[in-house]
Amino acid sequence: MAPAGEFGRIATYFAPLAAGYPGAFGLRDDAAVLAPSDGAELVVTTDTIVAGVHYLGDEPPGLIAAKLLRVSLSDLAAMGAAPRAYTLNIALPSAVDDTWVAAFAAGLAADQDRYGIVLIGGDSVTTPGPTTLTVTGFGEVPVGGALRRDGAKPGDVIFVSGTIGDAALGLLAARGRLAVPGAAALMDRYRLPLPRLDLGQNLRGLVHAATDISDGLVADLGHIAAVSRVAARIDVEAVPLSVAARAALATDARLIETILTGGDDYELVFTVPRSSAKRLAALADEIDLPLTAIGDIQEGAGVMVFDAAGAALPLSRAGYAHG
Amino acid sequence: MAPAGEFGRIATYFAPLAAGYPGAFGLRDDAAVLAPSDGAELVVTTDTIVAGVHYLGDEPPGLIAAKLLRVSLSDLAAMGAAPRAYTLNIALPSAVDDTWVAAFAAGLAADQDRYGIVLIGGDSVTTPGPTTLTVTGFGEVPVGGALRRDGAKPGDVIFVSGTIGDAALGLLAARGRLAVPGAAALMDRYRLPLPRLDLGQNLRGLVHAATDISDGLVADLGHIAAVSRVAARIDVEAVPLSVAARAALATDARLIETILTGGDDYELVFTVPRSSAKRLAALADEIDLPLTAIGDIQEGAGVMVFDAAGAALPLSRAGYAHG
Repeated sequence: MAPAGEFGRIATYFAPLAAGYPGAFGLRDDAAVLAPSDGAELVVTTDTIVAGVHYLGDEPPGLIAAKLLRVSLSDLAAMGAAPRAYTLNIALPSAVDDTWVAAFAAGLAADQDRYGIVLIGGDSVTTPGPTTLTVTGFGEVPVGGALRRDGAKPGDVIFVSGTIGDAALGLLAARGRLAVPGAAALMDRYRLPLPRLDLGQNLRGLVHAATDISDGLVADLGHIAAVSRVAARIDVEAVPLSVAARAALATDARLIETILTGGDDYELVFTVPRSSAKRLAALADEIDLPLTAIGDIQEGAGVMVFDAAGAALPLSRAGYAHG
Repeated sequence: MAPAGEFGRIATYFAPLAAGYPGAFGLRDDAAVLAPSDGAELVVTTDTIVAGVHYLGDEPPGLIAAKLLRVSLSDLAAMGAAPRAYTLNIALPSAVDDTWVAAFAAGLAADQDRYGIVLIGGDSVTTPGPTTLTVTGFGEVPVGGALRRDGAKPGDVIFVSGTIGDAALGLLAARGRLAVPGAAALMDRYRLPLPRLDLGQNLRGLVHAATDISDGLVADLGHIAAVSRVAARIDVEAVPLSVAARAALATDARLIETILTGGDDYELVFTVPRSSAKRLAALADEIDLPLTAIGDIQEGAGVMVFDAAGAALPLSRAGYAHG
């Protein structure tokens, strides 16, 4: 329940975001009603971000809104789900004014249009602490069709979408610690994820395991390996890099660690039986997104990264990978 | 996505709360899978509470957990939903230790058993601000069967469950500003809501409008009146009071305003056609919960409270009721 003083703000800025969905009751009821389509089930994911912890705080409010939504959409992509709806909980310091809220809501509206989702409920409270934002995202998959992390099998090929490391390098560039041609493109990748929703839905029935890369390729592949009780082996030379990332790596070879462990990629990493590799080549063409084989699944545990000579790369944050 | 350091805490304290639900994937996947039963749809409600704003902060962690869950369950009750599952987002200061988390999780576990719900997902982050907790509750209703706020019609009788004002008086007592026999019972009502889930589910098909009383009887009935575009008239003599509340009122007649507007009752207020009044008397017996007619719905707008002589009570917080 929002405190009485929040009703006006909800009516002004958030109720319009729910206008297209009758089951949200204009955000004026105790709850919303949500049903999956025939033959489908819902996928639910929730994320909280705190100003000063997960984002700086002084970003444009519309950008904060978009990043918040897209992190949630990336989780839905990783489950193979088609996005449907979301709820939003905002805890705002009293100093945050309606100008901020209006710009934040405009950012939500733009991504609602882009991704075909609608606000169905939420809560708005004040806090003496930093702005704290929670999105709970709802998608749907055919019953039993959700992609999971725990199905990787020895012999599977590991694939990633897009290019790896751009966001982590973009963060370095934004902090003035990396100057390369293409730095602006790297910073864009850090600022705003591109959830791989088309890819996720097309991977249903094809993959043994999938997740999105938020903590870093090595860590997130490590999660797949841990819950699947297998080992993952990455060939570092095969990891797809953007032109800007290659330029950065040429200036400092040690940046490979940032690329592999830095995170915020919001690409998908997934494992498929070797027999599916051809289908993936065709899929990459269909959805116009590179899908690259970067290694394989073996018996064992953990993630190992090998160079062209077959030597294991010592990653100082490798402990991360064995969680 | 929880930061890497949070994985151990989730595995230790929260994964056991999800153990009974396969679609939660042990809290180790990107999202959970949730499907309503055949012929049902989901009801979704979400609430955020902040330490120092919505609760003191030094309450026993298990009590905070129970109150958080029960406020959400009360929203499900107000929709006529049977509770199923919930997600939990916790933003904790780094000073909060595992002892606190363990006691908090134990409180969740106890109420999971009591109310037949299960944890299906969440997020755990650190914050430089106060503890901030979000629960998103999921229930189910037969398709189209959710109770709503917007269906009250002129001629309807207004009912409330239980007794009104105990929690608000209990808060006064807890602050040392009210000393009456039975104060301990009043404080209990403030400390821990009793969501009226049986009642809500039994009201399906019977009521025109329903909500739970969190902001206060006058304010919440005002929400029904506003979205139903009708007026509500309360006979103050008819409002059901506990023995302790009557004792308090005998010491200070002005406490009637606290009773009517103080909130945190978590009873249900609902409107029914006059023809359903007999059915409600039988229902009250069946579920062993008083259901009391306190007034009626008329053409117009707002909430008015009348005394035995038919004079309108001036409520200083009456503006609250016209939102």
